[in-house]
Amino acid sequence: MEENSSQLAEAIASPQTMEAGEEERDPENVSLQQPLLKRNRTLSSNPLAIIGAKVSYIESLDYEINENDLFKHDWRSRSKVQVLQYIFLKWTLAFLVGLLTGLIATLINLAVENIAGYKLLAVVGFIEKKRYLTGLAYFTGVNLVLTAFAAVLCVCFAPTAAGPGIPEIKAYLNGIDTPNMFGATTLIVKIFGSIGAVAAGLDLGKEGPLVHIASCIASLLGQGGPDNYRLKWRWLRYFNNDRDRRDIITCGASSGVCAAFRAPVGGVLFALEEVATWWRSALLWRTFFSTAVVVVVLRAFIELCNSGKCGLFGRGGLIMFDVSDVTVSYHVMDIIPVTIIGILGGVLGSLYNYLLHKVLRLYNLINQKGRMHKLLLSLSVSIFTSVCLYCLPFLAKCQPCDPSITEACPTNGRSGNYKQFNCPKGYYNDLATLLLTTNDDAVRNVFSSNTPKEFQPASLLIFFALYCVLGLITFGIAVPSGLFLPIILMGSAYGRLLGVVMQSYTKIDQGLYAVLGAASLMAGSMRMTVSLCVIFLELTNNLLLLPITMIVLLIAKTVGDSFNPSIYDIILHLKGLPFLDANPEPWMRNLTVGELADAKSPVVTLCGVEKVSRIVDVLKNTTYNGFPVVDEDVVPPVGQATGATELHGLILRAHLVKVLKKKWFLQEKRRTEEWEVREKFTWVELAEREGNIEDVAVTRDEMEMYVDLHPLTNTTPYTVVESMSVAKAMVLFRQVGLRHMLIVPKYQAAGVPPVVGILTRQDLRAYNILTAFPHLARPNSREKRN
Amino acid sequence: MEENSSQLAEAIASPQTMEAGEEERDPENVSLQQPLLKRNRTLSSNPLAIIGAKVSYIESLDYEINENDLFKHDWRSRSKVQVLQYIFLKWTLAFLVGLLTGLIATLINLAVENIAGYKLLAVVGFIEKKRYLTGLAYFTGVNLVLTAFAAVLCVCFAPTAAGPGIPEIKAYLNGIDTPNMFGATTLIVKIFGSIGAVAAGLDLGKEGPLVHIASCIASLLGQGGPDNYRLKWRWLRYFNNDRDRRDIITCGASSGVCAAFRAPVGGVLFALEEVATWWRSALLWRTFFSTAVVVVVLRAFIELCNSGKCGLFGRGGLIMFDVSDVTVSYHVMDIIPVTIIGILGGVLGSLYNYLLHKVLRLYNLINQKGRMHKLLLSLSVSIFTSVCLYCLPFLAKCQPCDPSITEACPTNGRSGNYKQFNCPKGYYNDLATLLLTTNDDAVRNVFSSNTPKEFQPASLLIFFALYCVLGLITFGIAVPSGLFLPIILMGSAYGRLLGVVMQSYTKIDQGLYAVLGAASLMAGSMRMTVSLCVIFLELTNNLLLLPITMIVLLIAKTVGDSFNPSIYDIILHLKGLPFLDANPEPWMRNLTVGELADAKSPVVTLCGVEKVSRIVDVLKNTTYNGFPVVDEDVVPPVGQATGATELHGLILRAHLVKVLKKKWFLQEKRRTEEWEVREKFTWVELAEREGNIEDVAVTRDEMEMYVDLHPLTNTTPYTVVESMSVAKAMVLFRQVGLRHMLIVPKYQAAGVPPVVGILTRQDLRAYNILTAFPHLARPNSREKRN
Repeated sequence: MEENSSQLAEAIASPQTMEAGEEERDPENVSLQQPLLKRNRTLSSNPLAIIGAKVSYIESLDYEINENDLFKHDWRSRSKVQVLQYIFLKWTLAFLVGLLTGLIATLINLAVENIAGYKLLAVVGFIEKKRYLTGLAYFTGVNLVLTAFAAVLCVCFAPTAAGPGIPEIKAYLNGIDTPNMFGATTLIVKIFGSIGAVAAGLDLGKEGPLVHIASCIASLLGQGGPDNYRLKWRWLRYFNNDRDRRDIITCGASSGVCAAFRAPVGGVLFALEEVATWWRSALLWRTFFSTAVVVVVLRAFIELCNSGKCGLFGRGGLIMFDVSDVTVSYHVMDIIPVTIIGILGGVLGSLYNYLLHKVLRLYNLINQKGRMHKLLLSLSVSIFTSVCLYCLPFLAKCQPCDPSITEACPTNGRSGNYKQFNCPKGYYNDLATLLLTTNDDAVRNVFSSNTPKEFQPASLLIFFALYCVLGLITFGIAVPSGLFLPIILMGSAYGRLLGVVMQSYTKIDQGLYAVLGAASLMAGSMRMTVSLCVIFLELTNNLLLLPITMIVLLIAKTVGDSFNPSIYDIILHLKGLPFLDANPEPWMRNLTVGELADAKSPVVTLCGVEKVSRIVDVLKNTTYNGFPVVDEDVVPPVGQATGATELHGLILRAHLVKVLKKKWFLQEKRRTEEWEVREKFTWVELAEREGNIEDVAVTRDEMEMYVDLHPLTNTTPYTVVESMSVAKAMVLFRQVGLRHMLIVPKYQAAGVPPVVGILTRQDLRAYNILTAFPHLARPNSREKRN
Repeated sequence: MEENSSQLAEAIASPQTMEAGEEERDPENVSLQQPLLKRNRTLSSNPLAIIGAKVSYIESLDYEINENDLFKHDWRSRSKVQVLQYIFLKWTLAFLVGLLTGLIATLINLAVENIAGYKLLAVVGFIEKKRYLTGLAYFTGVNLVLTAFAAVLCVCFAPTAAGPGIPEIKAYLNGIDTPNMFGATTLIVKIFGSIGAVAAGLDLGKEGPLVHIASCIASLLGQGGPDNYRLKWRWLRYFNNDRDRRDIITCGASSGVCAAFRAPVGGVLFALEEVATWWRSALLWRTFFSTAVVVVVLRAFIELCNSGKCGLFGRGGLIMFDVSDVTVSYHVMDIIPVTIIGILGGVLGSLYNYLLHKVLRLYNLINQKGRMHKLLLSLSVSIFTSVCLYCLPFLAKCQPCDPSITEACPTNGRSGNYKQFNCPKGYYNDLATLLLTTNDDAVRNVFSSNTPKEFQPASLLIFFALYCVLGLITFGIAVPSGLFLPIILMGSAYGRLLGVVMQSYTKIDQGLYAVLGAASLMAGSMRMTVSLCVIFLELTNNLLLLPITMIVLLIAKTVGDSFNPSIYDIILHLKGLPFLDANPEPWMRNLTVGELADAKSPVVTLCGVEKVSRIVDVLKNTTYNGFPVVDEDVVPPVGQATGATELHGLILRAHLVKVLKKKWFLQEKRRTEEWEVREKFTWVELAEREGNIEDVAVTRDEMEMYVDLHPLTNTTPYTVVESMSVAKAMVLFRQVGLRHMLIVPKYQAAGVPPVVGILTRQDLRAYNILTAFPHLARPNSREKRN
């Protein structure tokens, strides 16, 4: 995967080697502070990532509280009422996220079930009349139109809406702001694109997209509306910061999973285990509230639909694939098939990850060629899928209906377990039961319990092979697509197949084998444990299945982990998102942050009262987002006064730009009073990160004036001493959620600079460090330990 | 609750005001470095806490990796095989924790069910023969003997085994080492004491004790056996540090909950939500593995017992109080009773917390008077409980059996829902069904569904009132006691009562009302949400109940939180354990760590190569556990060399003592080579925290020699600049899991000390800070915000 940044470099027009700093776009900065000696090692950082098939500049988020004078004043002056307002609003937003997610999930479900339902009924009609070719043309045509609708939406209006969106959410919660990921356009395209793509019978799910949709809702609610039409409501002003948005997007992510699987606890755990980087106990409670609201909304609609007012919207209570009617009885000997399923899941899951990685890289190349290519790719996949789904059932032999079963057999209805397809009366086509139906119904059918003779091994084999191919080629196309359902389909196929093979040796129902197969492949590919376990529990409503599900998941994850990282990690890496891992690499203990700082270009510091011209110069010629503020010639309470300096704190680029824009300049070099700054700025204004130095016009006279940076400086940045190991610095950076970390000297003497460096996310990434210090990656370097 | 430390002060013989430092026992230290000016504010810290009714000195744990030269060498030289050994061992330990917890839980269950079963059968025999007084005497006598057995064990051998142990585990995982909490004696006493206390019919559960038992097992396994007979196995040497013990004890805590409620996912979530302070994704997976093992062991034994080989061990699969046979159908109108239950749970839960706090303070006073008082208190509670349980059923009227039910009625067996007690044939005593049985069966009976007419309101009211009284007076006595079951009993009583009252308005089954009542009181008292929800899900095996359980829990927690903190927080505070909360207080933003350091006595630093006499002096006259190591007269790479100093790191008291013990002295003042220190010390030795300065004898000649502290110094301590706010420093301290945090100056000049202070857990506690800075706690100070 290390080739990825070279690939990124190819992708951008002018591949240039960047030098130090978080969002360095410009090599001119070296002219500002020419390094004294030529370094032969340089810590490069690459602020580019693929966002929706386009290479974009990415920014870091700031989860630290920016404790400057304005914030402190605002904090002190907040009344009890305002604090209550804030708490009330936070809960209201969590409620609204749940409510809207529930409503939109219902809308998507209704639309998909109706569109796909009428389509399938028409196709069945053609088949009944033996007009097979017309049926094929109709099926392929409708699917093509639906796919084209989804793909055109994605390609033309919101390229970021393609794919699942979960890796980007994961990156966001890790502290990486990906542009256009949570906008209103993305939301709308994702909703309708998802309806189109799922109704088109493509091998993808609405689960991943729902997570993204819910996160978009959360983000939009949190900032008070889309970028152009924001609510300027006073109450919302407290939410305009990265920390609160992080919390509300976490709520969104869990609501999304909850809506997708109707699994409230599973949703919370998914957010906790897979998506979120920082977690607080209070967040557990709030996400839980959101998912509770989602479940209540879903339940209310299901109750409404059960009375028949939702068209073809069919079965289903709160449990999607209910297998609770199976009495689970298993014994010590069943450990063998369970272990086999687990190992198979791990091996196949990591193989799937490996192959999907290759396919995605290929697709990236195609997608970069332009919109037309993207569109054509999606349409070809659609045609291939439709033809396979329609034609393969003809290969299966018709099976006689078992008169002992209570279910209708054969059926030609919208759903149902025994599809007649091309068979005579009293016979059913088991492959059509699996293929010529919606994906949800296919899962329901393959999970069906107490039907040991329903599926022939040959049919299951074809089903498995087809979905392996489709699962690989469908995911990367330019439509909203989830990974959960394709993996569940693949996994359930080989699980059930194993059940058929083991039939004579085991008492476990074949439906349960299918469930276990699906779980094992999920764990083998996504590497989640507790959350998957609970999601499957809530999906299948069979608590007694829990212990064996746990064992299967643990085995599959262990086996998978020994081959490659999880699919989300692979996608994150492929997109070039600078995700910070939880565990530092072992060799990070052998490197100090001081050495890291030496490999960067020198830090650019500002004076407490700085000349306007210098600020403009610094902003124009560097791309750093934070600058240490240092007071010179101060008198320390102890020690010698000559040459004494004082570290005042860190000022953000956005705040400097705001000062320049508002022209808050002083005629002479002096400290300001608190009222002066409060007259000009509010804390809420400063929380917004807008403004570009290019838009600022400063006259020649103003250039000679001064700015007092003290009141706007964050006086409490997190710091490390230069002798700190990179491993520990990274733990601090990630645990506390930082954007900048200052390095202070270990020496105490006149003339030593009070700041020797500044670290950002990019500097702490293993890949970047290894580029600058290749000797650290010795062949016998140790594994990650925990 | 703020009176608590005055109470602590009363408790110890010589109440003295301590000055600064973590474990200061001695006011002499001021003589070492006399402050230049008399401070009028002093940051006091109190290293005392009540551990098992005895006031003990407590230490902090060190979760930071102590990166000194020895560690770094060991880290570099670890082979791949050793790393794999470590990983393998970590999983093996997680497995063993699960296995042993499962076995011991089964043992306790078997013992309790058999002892209590034969006791109850005998009592029923007396009642059948109308020998009521003999029955009372027998019942009271047996219960008294069992209680005495448990109490004597606790009082004489392991006072720390009394109570639930969960608050201490919570404190341990927060970084507080409580003495004798995880020893072998505590483990054994807890197991047998728990059997005695539960079999004695006291109003307490085995759930809390099981969590403590599992944590003891984990701790003992992690350190290789009890303190005196440790395995000196080479493999185990990697585990001899606080970090790894923390992880394994977290596994233990979740296994304990899992064994108590047979709730594997609930156990993991309980550890995550309530017990653990630090959490990593890898831990989620390992705790999950442990709980999976527990469930498999429990299941295997239940299967064995179902074949009748376990004496009176009765019903039960993996689900304890199965209500899955109830078809849950609820509608919008049911929101009203659900809301009422939630509010009731919150109000009653916080009232219970309030009253229990008062009772515990009273009991503390009694318990401090000596062993005899403790014993008498326990025995009086036992007699009161026995008399109430036996006599109150006589108040209930006999009810005729409903011929339409399938269950046996009336029954005189070991368990069963319709107890005959003193009634004629065809009649049953509903109060005896609830009282004259084991607590587990009582819960099962009150949860019983589809039995709408079984319990009379009057009986439920008596049941509720009795358990309110018992729940308050039983918890504090000197036997192992859990809080879960008493709360479930109380909650289910008022839940079912509400169900009876609302009978005509609702379709929800009374059994479900009881379940919801229990859940609401748990949430109202313990303030957990997701974990309780999952525990109840796994207890009752009814997934459709989930949405309303969620709503009840959320309401109850919200209501409860507006009155007082959770019961565990109250106990932590009562015991004086210096628990660090997740959220800093708002006023902490208005205080810098520099001001905090000013309020402490000055920091004691050591030189890189220090005289032995000075080390002995410092160790004897202070009680600090960490000392900054500063090199003087160094030559910095830039800046002036005159008077330059360098912060080398932090050395631990334990390591200094080890140096003195091993007499690793130098004749002259010089830096040592790496091989010299490696010859004398191993990293594993240093990881052990033993040794007392009192045991060290240094001759007068040796006093004049030198020690090179550099190789033993942790060169990468976490630091903050003196201008850092206390709020942010506390977040860092807690998130990263520190024991010491150095404060470096913001000034850079010759003569400024390179370290201006050192912060410990005690210094960051809100209570201690407010004592030194009372003006911060203004009446209009803001609430905690998140």
